[in-house]
Amino acid sequence: MATNGANSTNGAKDNSSKFDPNFTQHVIDLMSPETKPRHREVLSSLIKHLHDFCREVELTQEEWIIGVNYVNAIGQAYRKNRNEAWRVCDILGVESLVDEINHTVVTEKDLSPTSSAILGPFWSPDTPFRDLGSSVVQDMPKDGQFTFFHGVIKDAETGKGIPDAVFDMWQASTNGKYDTFDPENQSRHNLRGKFRTDENGKFWFYCLKPTEYAIDTTGPSADLLKIMGRHPYRPAHIHMMVTHPEYIGVTAQLYPNDDPYLETDTVSAVKDDLLLDFKPIQNDPKGATLEVEYDVRLLSKKFKPDSTMLMQNANQDKF
Amino acid sequence: MATNGANSTNGAKDNSSKFDPNFTQHVIDLMSPETKPRHREVLSSLIKHLHDFCREVELTQEEWIIGVNYVNAIGQAYRKNRNEAWRVCDILGVESLVDEINHTVVTEKDLSPTSSAILGPFWSPDTPFRDLGSSVVQDMPKDGQFTFFHGVIKDAETGKGIPDAVFDMWQASTNGKYDTFDPENQSRHNLRGKFRTDENGKFWFYCLKPTEYAIDTTGPSADLLKIMGRHPYRPAHIHMMVTHPEYIGVTAQLYPNDDPYLETDTVSAVKDDLLLDFKPIQNDPKGATLEVEYDVRLLSKKFKPDSTMLMQNANQDKF
Repeated sequence: MATNGANSTNGAKDNSSKFDPNFTQHVIDLMSPETKPRHREVLSSLIKHLHDFCREVELTQEEWIIGVNYVNAIGQAYRKNRNEAWRVCDILGVESLVDEINHTVVTEKDLSPTSSAILGPFWSPDTPFRDLGSSVVQDMPKDGQFTFFHGVIKDAETGKGIPDAVFDMWQASTNGKYDTFDPENQSRHNLRGKFRTDENGKFWFYCLKPTEYAIDTTGPSADLLKIMGRHPYRPAHIHMMVTHPEYIGVTAQLYPNDDPYLETDTVSAVKDDLLLDFKPIQNDPKGATLEVEYDVRLLSKKFKPDSTMLMQNANQDKF
Repeated sequence: MATNGANSTNGAKDNSSKFDPNFTQHVIDLMSPETKPRHREVLSSLIKHLHDFCREVELTQEEWIIGVNYVNAIGQAYRKNRNEAWRVCDILGVESLVDEINHTVVTEKDLSPTSSAILGPFWSPDTPFRDLGSSVVQDMPKDGQFTFFHGVIKDAETGKGIPDAVFDMWQASTNGKYDTFDPENQSRHNLRGKFRTDENGKFWFYCLKPTEYAIDTTGPSADLLKIMGRHPYRPAHIHMMVTHPEYIGVTAQLYPNDDPYLETDTVSAVKDDLLLDFKPIQNDPKGATLEVEYDVRLLSKKFKPDSTMLMQNANQDKF
């Protein structure tokens, strides 16, 4: 059992000395010897951090009740196409952090492949392959900015282009909606496409300059944003999922470098090497008014032989 | 925005160096300058510990999804008389810890008042006062062990008895149920009573030796117990809430010192100074076969002028 709290006094902000120093270990030690090692590892760390949090802020009982009610409210707000716990994680940066944890590859040579960023809920396994140079814009919105997008998918170690790599992209239209969520304005596969790199690792196609949009502003997740005084906007972005059988795949989002929400992205998924520089062009054969060039750096699977792509089915019902 | 993760290598178990060292502060800094100071303090600590937990165990995306689903399931299991988030907190020791944080009084003289323990959901504001020496057992169960309970409520500083202090007690019957949840077997106020101490601070009454019971073994909270290989039992206990206008009140639970679940209480609410020693007696005028003596030590409110009792309404719908 827990021992009676030692009443030692300590002027420092470290509150741990005021409270029973054995309590947290006591709770951890309640786990059975038969508990699976990974369960033990994760739950021990969870209990430790949960307790440290309570002690650090000297959580009052009233605040604890608010927290209890909040956790209950998250699950009560859950429904199809609305995964409230996922949203709260996004707002607290947890999805982006977990993405980093699972995609950081440490190499001896300090090679830097293109950063990973969260998949989001709108990737489709059915996106069609399109010819290099074709357009993903099936339904042109009036305020769309037609853009020529091109680049090279390179080996991060050798710098050489990778032939037959797949650049799978998807983006929202200017109304902030993706094709399947906007059947009145968009045909299926609008603003989606897979492109296979040529013999030099090059790919090129036409799309829209992406535009920013707000996440849903109701429910417990939005309440959390309000308490923190944060806006609900995501910076404009183009999603990409780049794959090749011999390379570690990269899923990320690419952002215009002049977007006003880069620094304050609701889901904290912006990274320095994921920025796009849109430049005006003239006399494009297909009438594009903007051009953007972006190269992707992939690491050979020899650096992480067990790497797999994201579990894409898990977040079908995210929003 | 977050910077691209530094690829420094570090053989130690500290994983922080593998990941972007600025990410957590970035998320914290998204809070507006207008965020209330206490909100900022609590949320900053929460974000920090949540992120540290993810990095420490290198949480996989599959595990994160399990966690997301678990949080949603908590709220989905919530209903009247079933506060699932509260139950999960109890299993993780959080209610007991918050209770300690809110009731630890640090004095210069290292005085030790009787420890606090969680209120639980079964306290009643309507419990009647009873005469000293009377019994709370209105409905005697066949397997009940009739007990003479007596003690002194003392000033923890002077050791003197406190007249006119109130010892409010409640306990489950031998079937593990409290009166209002067991109308077929128990009349209202069965096994509940308030006693006012005499001029010497003494109180005495008759009750049952308490018996252990299991918490509900369904739902997400019980799943958590199973993963940890833990049993669902609470040690037998008598609840008490001791009050006096000039003293800091104490709410706690008292446990037979021979209970098999003291060390492994489901809600981690056992403390060394809350144990009862039940002894056989003979020739008791009311026929008690057991006797127990327990003194309570209260601290003057001068040590904590702003102390208040628990917010008792908040947990009416706990179970």
